[in-house]
Amino acid sequence: MSTHEEGYRDRTRERLLAVAEALVTETGLDALQARRVAREADCSIGTLYNIFGDIHGLIIETNARTLKILGSIMTAASQRSTKENLEARLNTLAVTYLDFASANQNRWRAVFEHRLPVDKPIPERFGEDRRQLLAMIETQLADTIDDPEKRSDTAYALFGAVHGIVLLSLDAKLGTFEPTQCARRIRLLVAHAVAGIQATK
Amino acid sequence: MSTHEEGYRDRTRERLLAVAEALVTETGLDALQARRVAREADCSIGTLYNIFGDIHGLIIETNARTLKILGSIMTAASQRSTKENLEARLNTLAVTYLDFASANQNRWRAVFEHRLPVDKPIPERFGEDRRQLLAMIETQLADTIDDPEKRSDTAYALFGAVHGIVLLSLDAKLGTFEPTQCARRIRLLVAHAVAGIQATK
Repeated sequence: MSTHEEGYRDRTRERLLAVAEALVTETGLDALQARRVAREADCSIGTLYNIFGDIHGLIIETNARTLKILGSIMTAASQRSTKENLEARLNTLAVTYLDFASANQNRWRAVFEHRLPVDKPIPERFGEDRRQLLAMIETQLADTIDDPEKRSDTAYALFGAVHGIVLLSLDAKLGTFEPTQCARRIRLLVAHAVAGIQATK
Repeated sequence: MSTHEEGYRDRTRERLLAVAEALVTETGLDALQARRVAREADCSIGTLYNIFGDIHGLIIETNARTLKILGSIMTAASQRSTKENLEARLNTLAVTYLDFASANQNRWRAVFEHRLPVDKPIPERFGEDRRQLLAMIETQLADTIDDPEKRSDTAYALFGAVHGIVLLSLDAKLGTFEPTQCARRIRLLVAHAVAGIQATK
């Protein structure tokens, strides 16, 4: 491929991703259809497939960008709270997660709602950014839980717990979404979990 | 309406719901489209709308059936474990929830993935069965948490927590789904939460 062709390919790739990001932010995962994205990015569907393999390749890249933003916000929050105790540190991460999810609902949902066709192997990339979020929680637990498997399970359970509370609250399937109520429930769960972790240590 | 017409209406209603249940079980929420359900139930789309208002009315009834089955399984599990301690009782409910979700993934997902159009008011029915699941957890906490608001928040947080862990595990977005691993994480969270509830009592 000539340098000129590579430049065109890179620019088109960027444009497709920018369009996909805007679409998922405004409308949600359903809007990420090859025809629509290609049209708005002013290229052919063939070019989109050529660059991303298929629509799932584009969705995975778009979701990776969302996770990257989430990751950087959570890293910043975690660095601000390094001197606090375990409960305060976990609360900081959890509430940062809630804030991101409620401010970026469509993008955030797209990350968890996108499913690959069953016959498609899950690309390495798919799990990488998520593992980094888990690693961030594991780091908080390093001084408190010695056993690596138990630490990893606890990190996963805490992430799932906060994720589930945020999800149910945003869906308002069990009532109306009230951010302060949701934050209160998260803090309660974190408080109980931390007290429990320390009591069963 | 004559008795004859009522009989026809009731039978058609049942048939539509049976078709909808089979479709959602086999294929998932996406399969619940008015045209398809009406065709397979051998009636017109007009009749479907006449009985359920719109496709959302049918989906809500179908999901209500799923929640009713889930509710009866969880009630049975809860009655079997009344003599055990809080941790064991909560674990019984949580693992029963995991088992139901993994054995009935499409139906279970449909309950939480169905969203009403923003301009449509949420029917009373929508929240009723979900509130019963929460009430079941609250009952377990009756002897341990006196303050009603705190009890209700804790029940919600525990439900969300288990829901989130099950959801992430089934999506296998953070690894591969392994039922025993998922159950282990749930038990860990419940153990920590119960120890925490008792420690901060």
